[in-house]
Amino acid sequence: MKKDIEELVIITSWQRFKEYLYYDEEMELLLDISRMNFTPEFLTEMTEPMGTVYHQLQLMEKGALANPDEGRMVGHYWLRNPDLAPSEEIAQDIKETLGEILDFAEQIHMGSFRNILLVGVGGSILGPRFVADALASPQDKMKAFFIDNGDPDGIDRVLSHIGEELNATLCIIISKSGGTIETRNGMLEVRKRYEELGLSFPGHAVAITQRGSELDKLSQKEGWLRAFPMWDWVGGRTSLLSAVGLLSLALQGIDTAGLLQGARDCDKRTRRPDTLNNPGALLALMWYHSTQGHGGKQMVVLPYKDRLELFTKYLQQLIMESLGKEKNLKGETVHQGITVYGNKGSSDQHSYLQQLLEGPNNFFVTFIEVLKDRQGPSAYMEENSTSGEYLQAFLLGTREALTQKGRESMTITVKEINAYTIGVLIALFERAVSIYALLVGINAYHQPAVEMGKKAAGQAIQLKNRIVYFLKSHPSEKFSVHEIALAIQEEEHQEMVFKILLHLTINPEHGVNMEPGHPLPESRFFVGG
Amino acid sequence: MKKDIEELVIITSWQRFKEYLYYDEEMELLLDISRMNFTPEFLTEMTEPMGTVYHQLQLMEKGALANPDEGRMVGHYWLRNPDLAPSEEIAQDIKETLGEILDFAEQIHMGSFRNILLVGVGGSILGPRFVADALASPQDKMKAFFIDNGDPDGIDRVLSHIGEELNATLCIIISKSGGTIETRNGMLEVRKRYEELGLSFPGHAVAITQRGSELDKLSQKEGWLRAFPMWDWVGGRTSLLSAVGLLSLALQGIDTAGLLQGARDCDKRTRRPDTLNNPGALLALMWYHSTQGHGGKQMVVLPYKDRLELFTKYLQQLIMESLGKEKNLKGETVHQGITVYGNKGSSDQHSYLQQLLEGPNNFFVTFIEVLKDRQGPSAYMEENSTSGEYLQAFLLGTREALTQKGRESMTITVKEINAYTIGVLIALFERAVSIYALLVGINAYHQPAVEMGKKAAGQAIQLKNRIVYFLKSHPSEKFSVHEIALAIQEEEHQEMVFKILLHLTINPEHGVNMEPGHPLPESRFFVGG
Repeated sequence: MKKDIEELVIITSWQRFKEYLYYDEEMELLLDISRMNFTPEFLTEMTEPMGTVYHQLQLMEKGALANPDEGRMVGHYWLRNPDLAPSEEIAQDIKETLGEILDFAEQIHMGSFRNILLVGVGGSILGPRFVADALASPQDKMKAFFIDNGDPDGIDRVLSHIGEELNATLCIIISKSGGTIETRNGMLEVRKRYEELGLSFPGHAVAITQRGSELDKLSQKEGWLRAFPMWDWVGGRTSLLSAVGLLSLALQGIDTAGLLQGARDCDKRTRRPDTLNNPGALLALMWYHSTQGHGGKQMVVLPYKDRLELFTKYLQQLIMESLGKEKNLKGETVHQGITVYGNKGSSDQHSYLQQLLEGPNNFFVTFIEVLKDRQGPSAYMEENSTSGEYLQAFLLGTREALTQKGRESMTITVKEINAYTIGVLIALFERAVSIYALLVGINAYHQPAVEMGKKAAGQAIQLKNRIVYFLKSHPSEKFSVHEIALAIQEEEHQEMVFKILLHLTINPEHGVNMEPGHPLPESRFFVGG
Repeated sequence: MKKDIEELVIITSWQRFKEYLYYDEEMELLLDISRMNFTPEFLTEMTEPMGTVYHQLQLMEKGALANPDEGRMVGHYWLRNPDLAPSEEIAQDIKETLGEILDFAEQIHMGSFRNILLVGVGGSILGPRFVADALASPQDKMKAFFIDNGDPDGIDRVLSHIGEELNATLCIIISKSGGTIETRNGMLEVRKRYEELGLSFPGHAVAITQRGSELDKLSQKEGWLRAFPMWDWVGGRTSLLSAVGLLSLALQGIDTAGLLQGARDCDKRTRRPDTLNNPGALLALMWYHSTQGHGGKQMVVLPYKDRLELFTKYLQQLIMESLGKEKNLKGETVHQGITVYGNKGSSDQHSYLQQLLEGPNNFFVTFIEVLKDRQGPSAYMEENSTSGEYLQAFLLGTREALTQKGRESMTITVKEINAYTIGVLIALFERAVSIYALLVGINAYHQPAVEMGKKAAGQAIQLKNRIVYFLKSHPSEKFSVHEIALAIQEEEHQEMVFKILLHLTINPEHGVNMEPGHPLPESRFFVGG
């Protein structure tokens, strides 16, 4: 793990900074890679592999089955430039959906809805929540609430914040497959609350899902306000610029055209087969330099702007779910994966800069700098300096300290946070993920292992039902974990039986009680009496 | 990095689960370490080192200089049991302060304040914000707002949420040293807003700081409502149960006695020199098992409860700043450090479970399970199951999938989230940090490297001032970065000069303008005309 002191020296200079600085005037974006420890030789070596990558990217954007395991095209780039789509049909579908979203938002704005309540999980909500927070303003047309997890208490909290305003709340249920359990539960919990208040749920509900899914059918059958499509060729974690993100953002009053324009402009740069003039390629190449093509490195994302606080959570999914793979495309075992974490600077300086400077050198930092401090002017705090100047000084100081300690960093600079730059940032990281995946030869667009957890969860629900059924069939009789497990033929799952029983006894619904044992696993469980 | 398949097998069984399960009836806490891959031999080997640790812990609690570099005692354990303090004076001080906090809260509750605005950064606010959110309820007596970073736009956002209610907002400024720049800036920004609304800032302000600090003096001089003490022997990241956390939580209406009781009860268990009956020791020992005493591992914290969403951010500081150290106490270079990340389950399952299951095996998971689903009963969603049952099933499924893939995990189970269990959890992790640090022989209570970043930030501010002074001394004259750097004798910092200039041109305060160059670093800068 330890490197020699010699290796820890990062050569930085004004010359090197200027030589590798990526600057785009139109996007007002800078990417500085000079504090990554690569050599000119590395760039030369990578010319050929990068050439192959550009070729593959081109095929992908033309509709190749870039997600071979699932036999799917990868089309999130088309969302912001439908003319690139491989068929007229897809292009039309994207354009029409966008038109319908904007029309719908306009209609809603003329009515009495004041709030939006999004229900979803993972890729269906991390992006929308990030952008809603990043671009929130006092001029917003509607206020957004999020049910983004399956925690009943968490759902209750959100609903109690909305309170009586539920009658003025438009509820958007987002699930690509239309069968995500957390989302379905969220929908059922929310529906119950609407009904308790004497409100029609279908009269307040919108679905975003694949055509023909369970959720789509339900929305048709019950006459929900509307259903907007998700497409097979957009993955959940890259769906932000489909209806998944655009609908609620348009309702909130955010400049969705700006978002799309930012992403489109960035896409254009990141498909250039010219690495030094392609910010997505530079980013991916630096990841590759730092990881040496192997898994195990950490990417610490430090945005110095509160509005970007949720960006890291969004990037965690985008990057970790895309790149965390056991096998490469050849079927070899590679255990790829870059761990992403971070919140916001300079707060994080007080949190874990100590470890970054002195702990294991197994990471690289990605600073995100925003040049514009705030709307309106600033007062001087001390030393003739505004708080924005101090914030920049903290960024510069942290960056300097990292370099002195031989820790690598990159800095992305944008002029300000607005819909356009958020579009740029999203597209930039999406492309870097695509390119890195091509460099290391993995499929970035599937998530084969996630199914394992879901399957095991389904089994846990079945197990719980059999436990409850057994206990209810023997009212007032007390059983040990072992006896229950034996009776339902789950002897090898006694631990899970015990954990399920504990949960059942604390919650009232199934009427399961416990006669505590010492030690606790020797407790006896019963229903009734 | 890669382990053999053989090594990846984790032996789990009901027998092993029962053998190592820690259960405390009074605290209603379970800690299951059976899915960590240790052997009975490991526990035997560790008996002697753990004996030494218990001895050292005892000395620390009696007031030894456990933070030798800073010559300080480490007394956060005394906060919840003042009778343990090494002197009557300290004990009295703790008790009196607690009494004053409760009296003050009572007084405030009788008045017209409705909101609390906390201003701080890092250890002064991560804990208070976590607990305020975890224990928030519709019955809260006051609503809490947080300015926890130095971002001017972020400050504006918080103040605009408070809006006209600033007159009913009690502002608490928290800085142990009394000189933290972000906190001072936050204070000055907030003060300005009070004054703009014609309100007296001192009439709304409370300080929490060390006696005699700049902030303390200011509060005395201006006649703020009150100042509460921080002590030399409490580190920022373990200060949650001092006035730092207790004041705002008492104002919010949270059961601070419960918090303290939970921590006190947990402390009692975690000073037992009997590892299998000491949950703090078990936790630390498992960290030690997983890291093999070296830095570089990742701790993924997965609480399955929305109220614990901020717990990970709190733990990031507690663990990473404490354990991320270059040198051990003998002065040897060790690069210790455990990276902490995570948000909440089951959301995280959709985010990075894919990488956890298939990516690099360089982490261990700490599940936090909460048995009670919600206040009040739950409806069935489908399959005779409540959403709480699904949430538990996701936890169990994820845990099972991780085990099948040879990934280690621990599970902490609490009955419900309340002040008492939050106190328990805080004390549990605080102690685990103390014990782990003793096991690997580092000082967990200093943060020597953080100074580097601060120093460099101070230099950046000075540099900015010299740039501005130079440009203002030559009005309307245009200079390149090189010319400016040369003139102020900072040729080796041209990159920083450039970055500071860019920031200056985007913000209006100093009147610096840019004549853009191509490439951008060749731009020319000037003040006026």
